[in-house]
Amino acid sequence: MREDYDLEEERVRRFLRLHGVRRAAVQLPEGLRRHAGEIEELLRGEGVEALFLAGSCYGACDLAEEEAKRAGAEALLHYGHADMGLPTSLPVLFVEARMRVNPVEAVLRAAGGEEPGRVGVVTTVQHVGFLPEVVGALSSLGFRPQVGGPGPRTRYAGQVLGCDLTSALSVGGGVEKFLYFGTGRFHPLGVHLATGRPVVAVDPLSGRVERMDSREGFLRERRAVMARAAEGSLFGVVVSTKPGQARFRLARRLAERLREAGKRVVEVVADEIRPEPLLDLGLEAAVCVACPRIPLEDARRFGLPLLTPPELLLLLGEEGDYRLDSVEASDF
Amino acid sequence: MREDYDLEEERVRRFLRLHGVRRAAVQLPEGLRRHAGEIEELLRGEGVEALFLAGSCYGACDLAEEEAKRAGAEALLHYGHADMGLPTSLPVLFVEARMRVNPVEAVLRAAGGEEPGRVGVVTTVQHVGFLPEVVGALSSLGFRPQVGGPGPRTRYAGQVLGCDLTSALSVGGGVEKFLYFGTGRFHPLGVHLATGRPVVAVDPLSGRVERMDSREGFLRERRAVMARAAEGSLFGVVVSTKPGQARFRLARRLAERLREAGKRVVEVVADEIRPEPLLDLGLEAAVCVACPRIPLEDARRFGLPLLTPPELLLLLGEEGDYRLDSVEASDF
Repeated sequence: MREDYDLEEERVRRFLRLHGVRRAAVQLPEGLRRHAGEIEELLRGEGVEALFLAGSCYGACDLAEEEAKRAGAEALLHYGHADMGLPTSLPVLFVEARMRVNPVEAVLRAAGGEEPGRVGVVTTVQHVGFLPEVVGALSSLGFRPQVGGPGPRTRYAGQVLGCDLTSALSVGGGVEKFLYFGTGRFHPLGVHLATGRPVVAVDPLSGRVERMDSREGFLRERRAVMARAAEGSLFGVVVSTKPGQARFRLARRLAERLREAGKRVVEVVADEIRPEPLLDLGLEAAVCVACPRIPLEDARRFGLPLLTPPELLLLLGEEGDYRLDSVEASDF
Repeated sequence: MREDYDLEEERVRRFLRLHGVRRAAVQLPEGLRRHAGEIEELLRGEGVEALFLAGSCYGACDLAEEEAKRAGAEALLHYGHADMGLPTSLPVLFVEARMRVNPVEAVLRAAGGEEPGRVGVVTTVQHVGFLPEVVGALSSLGFRPQVGGPGPRTRYAGQVLGCDLTSALSVGGGVEKFLYFGTGRFHPLGVHLATGRPVVAVDPLSGRVERMDSREGFLRERRAVMARAAEGSLFGVVVSTKPGQARFRLARRLAERLREAGKRVVEVVADEIRPEPLLDLGLEAAVCVACPRIPLEDARRFGLPLLTPPELLLLLGEEGDYRLDSVEASDF
């Protein structure tokens, strides 16, 4: 099925006029970059010079405000993510790029195979506009759908992020399972790992359904990484400068704990956390104080054991149970 | 032969004490990253917290001042390059990391096969300390060595950079050939292309000698790239935000010229210029307003014709002769 996004041309025009913008920086995630030509035309039609920022655009946390200012832009158009409330020093418009594909049919097919009951409903911002319709459809099948309110970094009820699963956690205790609609495995896996409830994940584009109901494999793999990390003596504390990931306060706390535990610590700062510099620096293990997704999804790519902050605290005996990393205001 | 660098520990200590630094950012090029452990120890011995910046460190132009400030550092130690005089807003120490290997023997062997005469002598900052000794040795063989003064971005007589070949150009008219001592092919090739004089390149580590005396192959290849670029209708003007590469004024001039020539122009801003975003944005050709080395050395990697600014001006009929890109104060 075609990926069809709402690029909200009229809202962009109003924003540019409102702020009298002559030169605007544009941030696009990989999947939206092919729309650069039409966005350039839209801006040119308003007499606005478009500056496309070619760096990463992984989330609203990855806000290229500094790059936009260095490029002399007066405003920033950030596509593909919902505002997570970061403070900004120039006007920023978040164009969420909602997908137009209706997930209801795929959800109904997936739900047909499930025992009706209390079900938490979660999704990503690309599909969140269909949440009421999905809830209605599930109700019509006899389910009792529950939608949790947004957390500190999410904007909509039912929306989940890798670093903020509040909308799932807040209803997790009262549901038998979750239904996730959206693309990718990372978000539904996070909901399952964080709540312990089975998750039925429905991809509205392909119609594919996956059931996630065991965290044993995941936990075994992470405990193996933790065991390897425990053996390292030169330990990296790696923190990203991306505005919504720059948890320098947490990084310093972790560096102190590691030194108290007798490790040699090297603090590393990067925009994107890539494996090569960490290996070049001679690190034997590291904790990733950035996006929670990096150590979990990219583990094999790294060639050294890379922990999340809660995994390190567990390893150092400061916490008792395995928990997923989540980004808190007190980390900054 | 072992690569052995002078990391100037005592000068680093004095700098840290002078500025009362408690938290210092450290920038290392790839080849020096394995020294992170000893640098961390050196700083710890002074009671200074070391923050290793894991981004690129391609030259003094690639000064990670903003990243250092975002990381809360009070000073920046930049290793591997000579100061090119960029303004900075926090104390910066350039540790040039001179190589200890003496090039004289390799130079004498290479020069033995050459007809004595007037020879320009050029090198990179890693070896520039041996310039007087090399000049003396060449004189003893009957050569008349010429060393040009530094340019706007180089710091030492005889030093060349990919973006500043002044020390070669200023003596090029009065010499029969050049002798380059140092690693890599890019700098001696630049000297040959810019001056038209043959260059004898001597690698002090391997002892390897290469003679560069034909620019026909290079020019043929670049003219082919220019011909392919001429066919593109969606043209990128790609500029880097690295402080010493951020030639935004030149970029705007080139974008105007391209529009006057009937091209559709997309302006792109990046820290590192990588091929994927340019292709994702749908560009059919681009001009690289960043490090002059990128379009020349990385051409095949890019998958789209990537021009230097002078190549674009030649293509648009604004200049008559092929010349290498060099970075000028008026570009910024």
